[in-house]
Parts: sequence; C-alpha cells; structure tokens
Amino acid sequence: MTDHTLDDFRARCAARVETALDQILPPVSVQPSRLHEAMRYTVLAGGKRIRPLLAYAAGEALGLDAALLDHPACAVEMIHAYSLIHDDLPAMDDDDLRRGRPTCHRAFDEATAILAGDALQTLAFQALAEAPGLSAESRVAMVSALARASGARGMVGGQAMDLEAEGTPLDLVQLENIHIHKTGALIRVSVQMGVLAHGGLDADKAERLDHYAKCLGLAFQIQDDVLDVEGDTAQIGKTAGRDQELNKATYPALVGLAEAKAMANQLINEAIESVSIFGERAQPLVWIANALLGRKN
Amino acid sequence: MTDHTLDDFRARCAARVETALDQILPPVSVQPSRLHEAMRYTVLAGGKRIRPLLAYAAGEALGLDAALLDHPACAVEMIHAYSLIHDDLPAMDDDDLRRGRPTCHRAFDEATAILAGDALQTLAFQALAEAPGLSAESRVAMVSALARASGARGMVGGQAMDLEAEGTPLDLVQLENIHIHKTGALIRVSVQMGVLAHGGLDADKAERLDHYAKCLGLAFQIQDDVLDVEGDTAQIGKTAGRDQELNKATYPALVGLAEAKAMANQLINEAIESVSIFGERAQPLVWIANALLGRKN
Repeated sequence: MTDHTLDDFRARCAARVETALDQILPPVSVQPSRLHEAMRYTVLAGGKRIRPLLAYAAGEALGLDAALLDHPACAVEMIHAYSLIHDDLPAMDDDDLRRGRPTCHRAFDEATAILAGDALQTLAFQALAEAPGLSAESRVAMVSALARASGARGMVGGQAMDLEAEGTPLDLVQLENIHIHKTGALIRVSVQMGVLAHGGLDADKAERLDHYAKCLGLAFQIQDDVLDVEGDTAQIGKTAGRDQELNKATYPALVGLAEAKAMANQLINEAIESVSIFGERAQPLVWIANALLGRKN
Repeated sequence: MTDHTLDDFRARCAARVETALDQILPPVSVQPSRLHEAMRYTVLAGGKRIRPLLAYAAGEALGLDAALLDHPACAVEMIHAYSLIHDDLPAMDDDDLRRGRPTCHRAFDEATAILAGDALQTLAFQALAEAPGLSAESRVAMVSALARASGARGMVGGQAMDLEAEGTPLDLVQLENIHIHKTGALIRVSVQMGVLAHGGLDADKAERLDHYAKCLGLAFQIQDDVLDVEGDTAQIGKTAGRDQELNKATYPALVGLAEAKAMANQLINEAIESVSIFGERAQPLVWIANALLGRKN
C-alpha cells in the first residue's frame, strides 16, 4: 500500500469504484435512456462511498489485490443507492433532498425511480456473479451473503421494522434491532466481501473483521443521529433536524447526546482493537473508524 | 416421467414449487411480519406458475431430476411476483385487482408493497445462490442469466420502455421490442434454467430450447392482448378491456384480431418444432405451448 492518509486511500478507492460503476452501469446512449439516466444520477452522485471503502479496506487488511474488490464494491454501493431511491419515495420517507440534490423521484418521476431502484438491485447481483478474478465459489458466496444482508432478514427487513414502529415509542433494544438490520447488515457484508474474495480465511480472522464491521455499523448510526442534532443541512447533505421533526426514535433522544457520543466512541475503540492483529495492513480500517467520529488520524 | 397430461404435469410442478416457495419465504411468525405477509400474499396467491412450469419442463426435456429445478423455479416466480407488485403501484399501472384479489398495495399499503417487491427480488437471487444439488458454476451462471433477463436490459428495461412510450403511437417493431424485454426475457430465462442446471449442454440443444422460449414468449404476449379483447374479467383475473381503456398499443389494435391470432398460432408451431429433437421428453414443453392457445392436446 502506498497510501499515507485516509484521504489518499479514499481517493484511490473512490476512483476505482467510480470507474468500475461507470463501466457496469448501462450507458445513457442505450434505450431506455431515461431509466439509465436515473440509475446513473443516483449512483454517480458522489457520496462518501463508505461501503466500497470498507470492502477495499478489508481486502487491504488481507493483502488482496484491490482489483478483486472492484465488482463487490460496486455491488454494495448499488444496493445502497437502490435503497436510498426507494426510501426517499413519497410512500416511504417522502424526501426531496439527498446529498444536496433533488432525490431521484423529484429529478425524474416516481415510476422511473421505482424502476431505477429495481434495476440497481438486479445489477448489484449481476456484478457479483460476473466479478472477474474470483472463483465461482467466491462469487456465489458473495451473492448469498449480499442477498441475506439486504433482503427481508436484512436491510429491507430493517426498513419494514422501522415503518411498523412509526408512532410507537421504542426502547434501546428495539432501536438497535432496527439499525442492525437497516444499516448494519450492509456495512457488515461490505467488510465480508474482503473475506469472501480471499476465500478460505481462517475463522478467527474472519470473526475479527466481522466484529469490526458490527461495531462500526452501530457507531455509524449513532453518529448519524448525533449529526442530525448537531449538524447543519449543508454539512450532512439532508435536512437537519429531520428525525426530530418526524419524531423518530434516535440515540440522543433515548440516552442523551453526551451518552450517545460516548457509546459511539466506545464502539469505535472496540472496532479498532478487533483488527489490530492485521498490523500495518489494517491501517485503512483504522482510518475509516477514526474518521467516523471526526477524529484526526 | 409419469405424467399423461398437462394437468398431471402442472399439478406435480405446482406442488413442487409451492412447497419450495413456502420453505424459502420468511414465515409470518418472524418479524417484520407484515412484510413477510405481503410477500407471501402475492407469491402464494396461485396464478398459472407458467415460469416455474417452463423451468421444470426444460429440465424434463434434458432428463434432469426435477429437484434440481426447485430453487430456479422459485427464483423466476419470485422475480415475476415482485414485478407484478411494483407494476401495480399507483405510480405505475395503478391497478386494484390482480388474479381476482386486491393488489399488494391495496391489501397492505404502498410502502409495504415497495419493500415486499424489493425483498422478493433479493430472495430470488438468494434462492439461486443457495440452490441445492447444483455446482457453484451452475448457480453463478443462473444468477448472471436471471439478472440479465430481469434488469435494465431485460424486464425492468421493458417496463421503462413501456412507460416512455405511453401516449406515443407504436409500430409493430417497437411493440415487439418492448415485449421481448418486458415479458419475453423472463420466459426465456425460465427455460434457460434447465440448460444451466444441466451444465455443459451442447450448443445446438441449448439453442433449440432457447428458440422454443423466444417463440413462446412472444406468443404469450400476443395471446394476452387477444384475451384482453375477447375474455371477460373473471377468466383473465384482471379488468378486461383495460389495455383499450389505457389506449395501449396491442397486437389486435396494430394488426387486427384475426392476424394476431394467426401470428400466435405460427409462433407456437415453430416453438413445438424447435424442441422435437428431444422426443418424448419434450412432451411437457409441447403441452405448455399448445395450452397457451387453448388447443387440446
């Protein structure tokens, strides 16, 4: 690895995944162009690329060639993008703004947004099934893992739980259960992509990477809630105070702002400790964890 | 094979795929139960199971154990079911009735219907990735084929073309292009599941099965348009005359009712001829083709 900072690593990975996404996504010159435009509008809109970054960082920790993670990184990012498109729909969260731009259904129309989300999900599985350089066993294991993480018992299940819980007061256990599914599962599987690309990794190392991802996922959500209270709209790219306005259960609301911050801090320390056995190669995983809390590396 | 008629074959296959679907779909007893209920409501509502039937019939033509097609049959049926759910949404076709029952978003709500469709798509790929008895190579080839058939360059692409074409007059070439993507691709990949379950089938046989599927898929759509003109609501399970009401391009509208029927007839004959080399074992494929036109076997 030649990266000296998270910025180096992030720039390198973002360039990789964006090049790969551009190749994988159908071109606007091909019919139906409006659908393809809507897919590209959302996926190529930037964003922190945290899930691809995690896939590459896990690969780095295991000494893998980054090229092996290009398709898996695209897959987790396209699942994330599709979930944002559907989540923003009027029948769901009804959001007009995402990453500072009109949401997909506002920029296009609802029908196109539904279909663009659908097609992005499909393309994620295609990208895994056709990932170059990986054995059929690795690819099929990735499809299975991504499906489990993003389906009815994973991300979509978490969104459904979130919907069902609306208007009812949640305790901390219920809130965590929603987040573990809604956002945690996809973060976890992003790291798992590195493990599956490696193939035959010993159980302890796989478990340590998975524990890192579990801690990071939960910290990520707590921090998101904290920023919703503390941040401004420009900084977080969505309408600040939106959760409070919707009267959603959040960590700051349940345990107080100071305690929420302490929880996130503790989880990040645990995540970093968990991957210490990988030594220098775990540096990108450590950078990502620290950066989540705005810590300087 | 012990089946003597299409009814025998259909009953045996329907029992197989429904047992497998019931095992694959998450139980209502598990949270989020409303999501799981919506998924089951649509998938287990009956229907002709034409796509699973085709997967089993292709397997039969190649002398495969039907058990190898259980997961692939579930996968194509779940993709079909998800597309119906999303297609029926208010932002799309806005249908209240499907197979004589309220559509998913009417029986539940829009948000649940969007998520149920999403989760069914995910589960289809999971079912393929985890299909018992098949090599990793076969499973990963199935994921790739199903994704190509159902994504932006397949089924979803066809739906998007259909949307973009609304209000503009279509010619026969444009209409066929929409149908080839919107419904044809999924029918074609259903037959292909048999080819991929076999693995290493010689190119001529694979091509003959594929040609059968292409002809059948187009005949299927023409017949659907014909029934929309001739059928009544109870028989076809959706609101009769709906296409005319929406002023949609249809085969009868473009070429006349008699010519549309002749086209379907010709395509079915070609389909049957294409699989004649498989002899007795192609009997279910022949039954299905004849039944599409209401021909007695």
